[in-house]
Amino acid sequence: MALVVQKYGGSSVQDADRIKKVAERIVRTHKEGHDVVVVVSAMGDTTDDLVDLADQVSINSFGQAPPPREMDMLLTAGERISNALVAMAIHSLGAQARSFTGSQAGMITTSKHGDARIVQVNPQRLRDALDEGAIVLVAGFQGVSQDSKDVTTLGRGGSDTTAVALAAALEADVCEIYTDVDGIYSADPRIVPDAHLLQTITYEEMLEMAACGAKVLHLRAVEYARRYNVPLRVRSSYNDKPGSLVSGSIEEIPMEKAIITGVAHDRSEAKITVTDVPDTPGMAARIFRTVADAEINIDMVLQNISRTSANRTDITFTLPRSDGARAVAVLSAAQPEIGFADVLHDAEVGKVSLVGAGMRSHPGVTATFCEALSSAGINIETMNTSEIRISVLCRPDQLDDAVSALHAAFELGGDEQAVVHAGTGR
Amino acid sequence: MALVVQKYGGSSVQDADRIKKVAERIVRTHKEGHDVVVVVSAMGDTTDDLVDLADQVSINSFGQAPPPREMDMLLTAGERISNALVAMAIHSLGAQARSFTGSQAGMITTSKHGDARIVQVNPQRLRDALDEGAIVLVAGFQGVSQDSKDVTTLGRGGSDTTAVALAAALEADVCEIYTDVDGIYSADPRIVPDAHLLQTITYEEMLEMAACGAKVLHLRAVEYARRYNVPLRVRSSYNDKPGSLVSGSIEEIPMEKAIITGVAHDRSEAKITVTDVPDTPGMAARIFRTVADAEINIDMVLQNISRTSANRTDITFTLPRSDGARAVAVLSAAQPEIGFADVLHDAEVGKVSLVGAGMRSHPGVTATFCEALSSAGINIETMNTSEIRISVLCRPDQLDDAVSALHAAFELGGDEQAVVHAGTGR
Repeated sequence: MALVVQKYGGSSVQDADRIKKVAERIVRTHKEGHDVVVVVSAMGDTTDDLVDLADQVSINSFGQAPPPREMDMLLTAGERISNALVAMAIHSLGAQARSFTGSQAGMITTSKHGDARIVQVNPQRLRDALDEGAIVLVAGFQGVSQDSKDVTTLGRGGSDTTAVALAAALEADVCEIYTDVDGIYSADPRIVPDAHLLQTITYEEMLEMAACGAKVLHLRAVEYARRYNVPLRVRSSYNDKPGSLVSGSIEEIPMEKAIITGVAHDRSEAKITVTDVPDTPGMAARIFRTVADAEINIDMVLQNISRTSANRTDITFTLPRSDGARAVAVLSAAQPEIGFADVLHDAEVGKVSLVGAGMRSHPGVTATFCEALSSAGINIETMNTSEIRISVLCRPDQLDDAVSALHAAFELGGDEQAVVHAGTGR
Repeated sequence: MALVVQKYGGSSVQDADRIKKVAERIVRTHKEGHDVVVVVSAMGDTTDDLVDLADQVSINSFGQAPPPREMDMLLTAGERISNALVAMAIHSLGAQARSFTGSQAGMITTSKHGDARIVQVNPQRLRDALDEGAIVLVAGFQGVSQDSKDVTTLGRGGSDTTAVALAAALEADVCEIYTDVDGIYSADPRIVPDAHLLQTITYEEMLEMAACGAKVLHLRAVEYARRYNVPLRVRSSYNDKPGSLVSGSIEEIPMEKAIITGVAHDRSEAKITVTDVPDTPGMAARIFRTVADAEINIDMVLQNISRTSANRTDITFTLPRSDGARAVAVLSAAQPEIGFADVLHDAEVGKVSLVGAGMRSHPGVTATFCEALSSAGINIETMNTSEIRISVLCRPDQLDDAVSALHAAFELGGDEQAVVHAGTGR
C-alpha cells in the first residue's frame, strides 16, 4: 500500500462534470488500496473572476491595489469551494472524504501575502484522517502565516508546490501532477510534431526546462521535490497513460549514459542592455538594486569582459515583457548617479534552451548547437550556459525554427531518445 | 465614542456597486469616531449557487445528501468572499479594514453542521484590530466547532445571530441590522398601507412578532439580544432613517402605558389534527416523539380538554407546509400503536397574530380581536394565546383581510400608536 498525493489544476475541475470525473479517478486509486491525498486548484476561472471583483470594488482616485491580506482572504475562497465539491463527489461514489484548508492542513508559511513561502508542514490532522480511512483533500495555493496567523497565498505555481510539500511531509511514494497533456515532452509538440514523451527526467534537468520556458511544472515545485527527493509524475487527467517521472539527480547518471533531454523555449521576455557601465566594483550592484527596488524580477543576466579602452562593459538581462518599460524608466532615472551610457530596450525576444545532463561529458554539444541554428539562418544574439543547459536569445519570429532545428540536430524526435556519442566530433 | 456592530444582508452586497455603497456607510460611521464591527452575508445568490453546485456533484443513485461537514466548508466560502471585498472597498476609501472568518473572530459553536449554536465568543483578536484603529469585518453565519475544530454554519438567521453575539461579547452600544425596509412595522405594509413604523419595541414583543411570521429579524437573534441586553436597531441600507429599536423588557413598561404593538401573519404553514387520541398519560408524548424522530419541526400545539364520553381528545399542531405529507405518513404508520382515530391534514392555513404588552393589562383585547375578525367575515378555526399574543388560524385566502381588520380595530394605522384604554369595554 502506498501513499499517493495527486494534484488537479483548475481546468480539471472547471465544472460539475469534470469534478465528478476527477472524483472517479481518485476513488479508483483509493480502491487499489492506497492512502490518497489530493490537492485541488480553484475551479476554472474562479481566481481571475475574484481578482476582477476585487478590482471593481477598489476603483478609486488613488489607484491603489487592494490590500494584500484581504486579497489572500478573498482568493483562498476559490480552493475552499473546489475541494469541498470534490469531497462531496467522492462521497457520492461511496467513499469517505474530508477537505481541509491550507491552514487546517498545517501549511505554515512566511507572511508575504500573494507570494508566501512554505516554512513548515505539520500534517498530523491529515494523518489522522487517513488513518480513519478517509481520502484527504487539501486546498492548494494557500497556508497560514507563522507570524500573523493570517491566511496567505503562495504565488505562482502554488498548488504544485502545495502538493509536493505535502508529499514530502507525508513521505509519500509519489506526487502525481495531473494536467491536460500526456506528460513532459522533449519540446513543445505544437512546434515540433515529432517531440517525444520523456519517460523520466532528472530534477536538475526539469529545473532547467521549467526555468527556460517549459510550463508543465513550476520551478518552485520542482526545486522543492528535488530538495526532499519527492518522485514527481506528470500525467494527463484525461487518460490513464503513466506520463513522465521526475526523479533522480544528474549525479546518479553514469557519464556515458547521459543524454540530451529536450528543448525549451520562452517568448514572454524582453531584454535590456545597460551600455558602457563603468567597470568598477559596485556598478552592477547599483544597477540591479535599482531594478529590484522597483519590484521587477530579473531572469537571465549576462556581462562579458570590459574590452574598451575606457574600461566599460555592457550588462544585459532579461525580464517579463510587461516590466520592460518600467525597468527602462527606473534605470534612466538612475543614470546620472551610476554613469552608464544608455539603456537599450528590446521589447520582445525569443529564448531557446537545450537541456541535458549529457552535455557535461560531451564537448561537441555546443558546436552542434551553434551549427544547427546557423543552418536554420538564426542569428545568436546572446548565449549563456549552465552545466546542463545552453540558452540563446534570438528574434521571436525565429523561435519556432530554432526549436525545430535543435530538436532535429540532437535527434530528439520519435521514440528513440538522442544519445550523444563521445568523440564523434559533433 | 461608541462601539457599533452593523450587519448587512446578501442583497445589500449583491454586486460591486452595492458593496461600495455599504463601504461608504461604514466609513461614515467610523469617521464619526466610533469603533465599527461589520458582519456581512454572502453576496446575493451565492449561497444558493453553491448549494446548487453541491447538488450537481452529488447526484448518484443512492440519493444521498452531500456530507454536512463539506457543505459547511463550501458555504462558508461565500461570506469569506463578501467580507474580503467589503474590506477592500473600505481600504479604497482611505480607511483601514481587516476581515476575519467566524473561526478567526472567535465564534465557538456546537458541532452540528448546518445548524450550529454559538457556545462562546472570544473576541480578543477583534479587539486588537479595533485598538489599531481598523474597521473589523466578520463573516456571518459561521463559526468553528469546539469539539472537532471543523468549520460550522449556523442555520437560519445565522448572520443576524453572529452580529448580535459579537455585539454582546464586545459590549457594543448598539447592533444595527441593515435591511431593505425602513424598520419594523405594525403590520406588513404590503397588506396594510397605513401600517406605521415602530420607533421602539420590547424584546418579548419582537420575539412574538418573529415567531408569528414577521421576517425582518430572526427569532434566534432576538432571543440572543434579549438574553444579553443588546440594543438592536433595524434600519434600511438605502437611506439614513433611524429605523426601529428593539430594546427593553415588557416588565419595564408601566402597565398603563402598555400598548398593542402590531399584527404578524404567516402563510407558510399547514395544520395537522390527530383525532380521538386516548386521553391517557403518554399519548401526546408518543405523537410528538413520532414527529420529532422524522426531524419535523412543530410550531404551534393545541389540545383542548377531552369532552367525549370515550375520554378522547384532539391534538392539533402546525408545521411547515413542505413537511405536511411526511408528518401524515409517519403518524399514520404509528396509528395502530398509539390508537388515535385519524390524521387530518389541512395543507394550507393562514396564521394571524396580535402582539402587544398592553394585552396583559387590558382584558377587553380578546373581545375586540374576535369582533374584528367576525365583522370581516373571518371564521376562527383555532385560537391560542401567550401573555402578549393572540394567534388564530384561518383560511389562507382570508389572511390579508384578517390582518387589515385587526390593524384597524386596534388603531395601529398612521403616526399615532394605538393605546388601549382600560375600562372601555373593548
